[in-house]
Amino acid sequence: MSEATTTLFAEPAETEVQKVNHLPKEALTASTMKALVYHGPGKRAWEEKPRPAIKDSSDAIVRITTSTICGTDLHILKGDLPTVTDGRILGHEGIGIVEEVGPGVSSFKKGDKVLVSCVTACGKCDFCRKSMYSHCRHGGWILGNTIDGTQAEYVRIPWADTSLYAIPPDADEEALVMLSDILPTGFECGVLNGQVKPGDTVAIVGAGPVGLAVLLTAQFYSPATIFMIDLDDKRLKVAKELGATTLINSADGNAVKRVMELTDGAGVDVAVEAVGVPATFDICQAIVAAGGRVANVGVHGKPVELHLEKLWDRNITLTTRLVDTVTTPLLLKVVQSGKLQPRKLVTHRFALNDIMKGYDTFSNAAAESALKVILKSETPR
Amino acid sequence: MSEATTTLFAEPAETEVQKVNHLPKEALTASTMKALVYHGPGKRAWEEKPRPAIKDSSDAIVRITTSTICGTDLHILKGDLPTVTDGRILGHEGIGIVEEVGPGVSSFKKGDKVLVSCVTACGKCDFCRKSMYSHCRHGGWILGNTIDGTQAEYVRIPWADTSLYAIPPDADEEALVMLSDILPTGFECGVLNGQVKPGDTVAIVGAGPVGLAVLLTAQFYSPATIFMIDLDDKRLKVAKELGATTLINSADGNAVKRVMELTDGAGVDVAVEAVGVPATFDICQAIVAAGGRVANVGVHGKPVELHLEKLWDRNITLTTRLVDTVTTPLLLKVVQSGKLQPRKLVTHRFALNDIMKGYDTFSNAAAESALKVILKSETPR
Amino acid sequence: MSEATTTLFAEPAETEVQKVNHLPKEALTASTMKALVYHGPGKRAWEEKPRPAIKDSSDAIVRITTSTICGTDLHILKGDLPTVTDGRILGHEGIGIVEEVGPGVSSFKKGDKVLVSCVTACGKCDFCRKSMYSHCRHGGWILGNTIDGTQAEYVRIPWADTSLYAIPPDADEEALVMLSDILPTGFECGVLNGQVKPGDTVAIVGAGPVGLAVLLTAQFYSPATIFMIDLDDKRLKVAKELGATTLINSADGNAVKRVMELTDGAGVDVAVEAVGVPATFDICQAIVAAGGRVANVGVHGKPVELHLEKLWDRNITLTTRLVDTVTTPLLLKVVQSGKLQPRKLVTHRFALNDIMKGYDTFSNAAAESALKVILKSETPR
Amino acid sequence: MSEATTTLFAEPAETEVQKVNHLPKEALTASTMKALVYHGPGKRAWEEKPRPAIKDSSDAIVRITTSTICGTDLHILKGDLPTVTDGRILGHEGIGIVEEVGPGVSSFKKGDKVLVSCVTACGKCDFCRKSMYSHCRHGGWILGNTIDGTQAEYVRIPWADTSLYAIPPDADEEALVMLSDILPTGFECGVLNGQVKPGDTVAIVGAGPVGLAVLLTAQFYSPATIFMIDLDDKRLKVAKELGATTLINSADGNAVKRVMELTDGAGVDVAVEAVGVPATFDICQAIVAAGGRVANVGVHGKPVELHLEKLWDRNITLTTRLVDTVTTPLLLKVVQSGKLQPRKLVTHRFALNDIMKGYDTFSNAAAESALKVILKSETPR
Repeated sequence: MSEATTTLFAEPAETEVQKVNHLPKEALTASTMKALVYHGPGKRAWEEKPRPAIKDSSDAIVRITTSTICGTDLHILKGDLPTVTDGRILGHEGIGIVEEVGPGVSSFKKGDKVLVSCVTACGKCDFCRKSMYSHCRHGGWILGNTIDGTQAEYVRIPWADTSLYAIPPDADEEALVMLSDILPTGFECGVLNGQVKPGDTVAIVGAGPVGLAVLLTAQFYSPATIFMIDLDDKRLKVAKELGATTLINSADGNAVKRVMELTDGAGVDVAVEAVGVPATFDICQAIVAAGGRVANVGVHGKPVELHLEKLWDRNITLTTRLVDTVTTPLLLKVVQSGKLQPRKLVTHRFALNDIMKGYDTFSNAAAESALKVILKSETPR
Repeated sequence: MSEATTTLFAEPAETEVQKVNHLPKEALTASTMKALVYHGPGKRAWEEKPRPAIKDSSDAIVRITTSTICGTDLHILKGDLPTVTDGRILGHEGIGIVEEVGPGVSSFKKGDKVLVSCVTACGKCDFCRKSMYSHCRHGGWILGNTIDGTQAEYVRIPWADTSLYAIPPDADEEALVMLSDILPTGFECGVLNGQVKPGDTVAIVGAGPVGLAVLLTAQFYSPATIFMIDLDDKRLKVAKELGATTLINSADGNAVKRVMELTDGAGVDVAVEAVGVPATFDICQAIVAAGGRVANVGVHGKPVELHLEKLWDRNITLTTRLVDTVTTPLLLKVVQSGKLQPRKLVTHRFALNDIMKGYDTFSNAAAESALKVILKSETPR
Repeated sequence: MSEATTTLFAEPAETEVQKVNHLPKEALTASTMKALVYHGPGKRAWEEKPRPAIKDSSDAIVRITTSTICGTDLHILKGDLPTVTDGRILGHEGIGIVEEVGPGVSSFKKGDKVLVSCVTACGKCDFCRKSMYSHCRHGGWILGNTIDGTQAEYVRIPWADTSLYAIPPDADEEALVMLSDILPTGFECGVLNGQVKPGDTVAIVGAGPVGLAVLLTAQFYSPATIFMIDLDDKRLKVAKELGATTLINSADGNAVKRVMELTDGAGVDVAVEAVGVPATFDICQAIVAAGGRVANVGVHGKPVELHLEKLWDRNITLTTRLVDTVTTPLLLKVVQSGKLQPRKLVTHRFALNDIMKGYDTFSNAAAESALKVILKSETPR
Repeated sequence: MSEATTTLFAEPAETEVQKVNHLPKEALTASTMKALVYHGPGKRAWEEKPRPAIKDSSDAIVRITTSTICGTDLHILKGDLPTVTDGRILGHEGIGIVEEVGPGVSSFKKGDKVLVSCVTACGKCDFCRKSMYSHCRHGGWILGNTIDGTQAEYVRIPWADTSLYAIPPDADEEALVMLSDILPTGFECGVLNGQVKPGDTVAIVGAGPVGLAVLLTAQFYSPATIFMIDLDDKRLKVAKELGATTLINSADGNAVKRVMELTDGAGVDVAVEAVGVPATFDICQAIVAAGGRVANVGVHGKPVELHLEKLWDRNITLTTRLVDTVTTPLLLKVVQSGKLQPRKLVTHRFALNDIMKGYDTFSNAAAESALKVILKSETPR
């Protein structure tokens, strides 16, 4: 979030904030914290950092109780995201306890348990008014990107009222932390944009955590068939357990042929790209039926070749989307009803203090059969 | 807005606010203002009242430059709305200049010209997140209802960031003040809920200001035919000028018969109820075609008889709605493009100081051929 | 179907048809059949009738293998439907084998197994082009109403190409005959019109066969909560087995109070009326949340009082619909995928020859715990 | 239309048809007609051909009174469409009088004036049921492609009931013949797929006849701004007359820059590609705003490079479509209401007998300032 665009507190307020900071006993004894810090390509450290403080009227400070690692964090560590600079605390997923709020915050107070959304939304700009929080003029994906993130003992959340979600004190944190990013991403970018309907034939290309989130949430709409396509048989096996009706290992280069055979040449109603490379996009555009949808979820680093010479008269719809997290309240209700069990995506658990090991495991996902790695704070209250 | 549900400033903040109030020079010289005050059924006065001050972090104080009177204000004066109590300043429409903002306001600053929305939206609650600002848990229609309104020299606007709209300094205030209530009401409750489409046959029952707002905005979607139905030939004549294709005076009780004849017995795709009494609702349910929509805009005080024994198999959709004012940005763009000319609804102009005469005229709308009455501040800057 | 609106074959064609009728061997030996015939209020008989023959180019003759009885048939027997006259063969649900087709039929041929839709659609008129088959200008609900129906050994189906659906030779007829009427009715009029979404709170008022069809198909969209409201504990018990999350017996008059308590005063996102009397409609309008939908499925014989004085500002949508059976292909896919098991609605089975007993049972549904009664032909091939 | 998939008349019927053919007097005296015939790349002739006769039950024979030439006809003449073979009569647009119908035709009779749709729809298959007539399993775009077309004195129209549209005897044929292809194409593929809304900013790339059809029909929805982008100033001038608000000649390579400047860097809500080459597609993908739509209308012969590395997080929707002509009834109503004046696209008129000159003019569109060329039959009745 660009400092220029936020409402900086005028002096009297700053004083007030400082006073508030001085009040809690634990705050007095601990003005630093531990955090996972990026130090340029390939370099990360679990190190001492100053504890964040309220800067803007709309801020909240959250003590992290559960966090996790995203594939995007690995991209950052490769140096792929120039917006992330040396010294940045990573992480955009988490659950925690509100420690303190700015005077503009009206929905949360100290002690509330909250889910942190990976997308920060001011709730006021033209994009937020259109529920396109991903493009919020004062937020969007900034946590662990342009401002410090959630892989830390504490995090500052700007625009807290519209970027945090209240959850019950006894909530299943391992399940709900999947709602910070991965489940709304799969649901909004894959399922909603793909317009999955009862009776549909759906193909999901990529059985990583996000592809599996598409798989879980596609079932909200009772498609008749879900093809899961991946190179890794272990992941495909997980997909089967999570509801895929047909598994296709694309290693032999025959995925398109298989899908077309299995659909009597018609192709699929919805093809979801959940990898982010030209080869998987190509599968999607080759298998989409006339009148079908290609929903892109993957993060792409290169252009793709779009076969408009074949598709111009096929009545297809192709969508892209950065998750808006507008469906977080809906997903919370569906989890609560028992119809969605996000815990199924969790394969490993570490103490937040052991996050360096967590990264080692997650970076080696294929060998470790890792999907989502839970990081659990053990800070005594 | 119920005081209980708003975030009252804690003491240190109150002090701060008071200080801010003392700063502006004009504030020092004028701690009172003139306002149109309701004093129980049939009683209104243009009298001295304390000037409003910032109470909550999200407030703005707006100096009114243009206001107007709504049919709802007349209802209030009849004593029909128990939520409005003795001493209340009326008015929920207006344009003005921001005088002061609370510390939680980030989108506006002193000196900005703004349109006041008749609906106050916190932008944070579950209803606001669903763009149902009308049911905002901390707002909704509160101005001139449960808190003081815009028929005054100054007004306090809670949740200013999401309840005010920036307009250019040289904006046509007479045109834009129609966007406080009447145009979004006609557009959202009548046209959008009625799903007007190109080529449609539309009937609007009631050619008062709101019915005419439906008429103006229905034309955004190029319906083929617009029947305007009313008892008053003068209003029907205005409707003709504003784009109605067929006028039907319903005084003879044959409106339904006429519409059915003119549609070869099919009825209309969209019937908009813009009066609020059983008789006009009955016309709507009698003329809606199979597969059609009845969009209720009128404020009803009594139940109606719904002929489900005739309609159960007619595939109709009936909607109700309190305006959400979610389309205000869209309407601002359409006015700016010249495709909507709301000034056409203005028939009379008074100085704000002469608002008592304005009410006399508007209360006697039929005889005075009054539609919208503009109230213009003459306060020197 | 009004004779006036159909394309009667010119003379040479009639001759042709007659010839065709004479060709099949079985036709020669059997020019009559048994059928359930209406003879005025309270009178029905299983009697000899002439076997139907092709009359129009688009006709098919279907030999019925499975049929069932609908609540509407009981209404007819009470004399409630003046369109049904003495001598009419009842029934609008069925599965069978195509015996013969007119020269305009291109999608079916002798020997095909087909599902008969309760709605006949010409596929050509303005309503059919808009997928409103229920209002087809040459069809709609005519079977067992204005033309002879399916509770017979043979039935003539006009506009066969767009009124029959191909099913596999080995299809589960007991399951699929539920797709003639009850499942598309529950799905289209209740679930689709009610816009059920993941996480929604849904209330279904009426646990008869159609209400249970709403219950089964609502689950395609993963609502979080489904209240089932009825007077009969036995039916509520069935609803529990079929997926209702909360049962409310409305006999004590506290159904509205219960729903409001259970929803913390908010009411339900979707209220489905599946009975057809003012009392159940009243429950629906009292429990619908702001922004919610009331989807009427019931067949109403009287007007209802609609509380517009309470609902005008609640942003609700109320829909009515005669089933269009446009979702039949979708439902066939969902049944095939195993995600919908319509057999659960079947409680009794009779030979078609014993249809008089079937009616006795179904007419006494409460005592017999009857939902759907299957009628199975035993005609040897 | 593949012969294999149609219902060929059985013998007795054939006889009947033959008899009908013999009845009309004019048929006896004229068993041949003149037609524009394709004879391989670059070769066309206005020559004698047998008059078409009813082949299938659903056929109609139409005597052409008005036809026109499409850009696609020029593509065919270049040899670009391998489906079009030597001897084929070209043309898929036309208005005429029904001369004769097959026994399966129920909506038309001899003497009716009709509009021929460029898309033939059986009305029965799965695609037609979904209103995707373009992909009809027995039709689609076949006229002047795989079966003989409308640039002739007579044409056979299969599935006449769902492929012809009744128009009044005194209809403005020059206006309505634009509804055979160009207007539904612009409207469905450009405007509806682009989801043009009131207040939107729209860019249309390509001011040829189809781009201008997008321009005319986009105005049904009252966008605030319409940029028209083309290389030809003469066409841009026409666009201005037809409602474009801003003209951009892209010859200097700065079209993208201009659009971004004029939209303050935001880009457009809707970008319509109406040319069919990579360069114009590139403009569209470069100017679409976050949350915007790219609607492809152009016929593409080559793949394009899609910049997913820039677009993956921009929440855009890209659509392709072959016109379904499902909006023909709507367009007929809008023309009738005077809100659409398709005659504005007509620049030249020829007798049908002079069609060879008509082709010369249309092939040289830039120099001749040609948009649509009307071909008018002068056959005496």
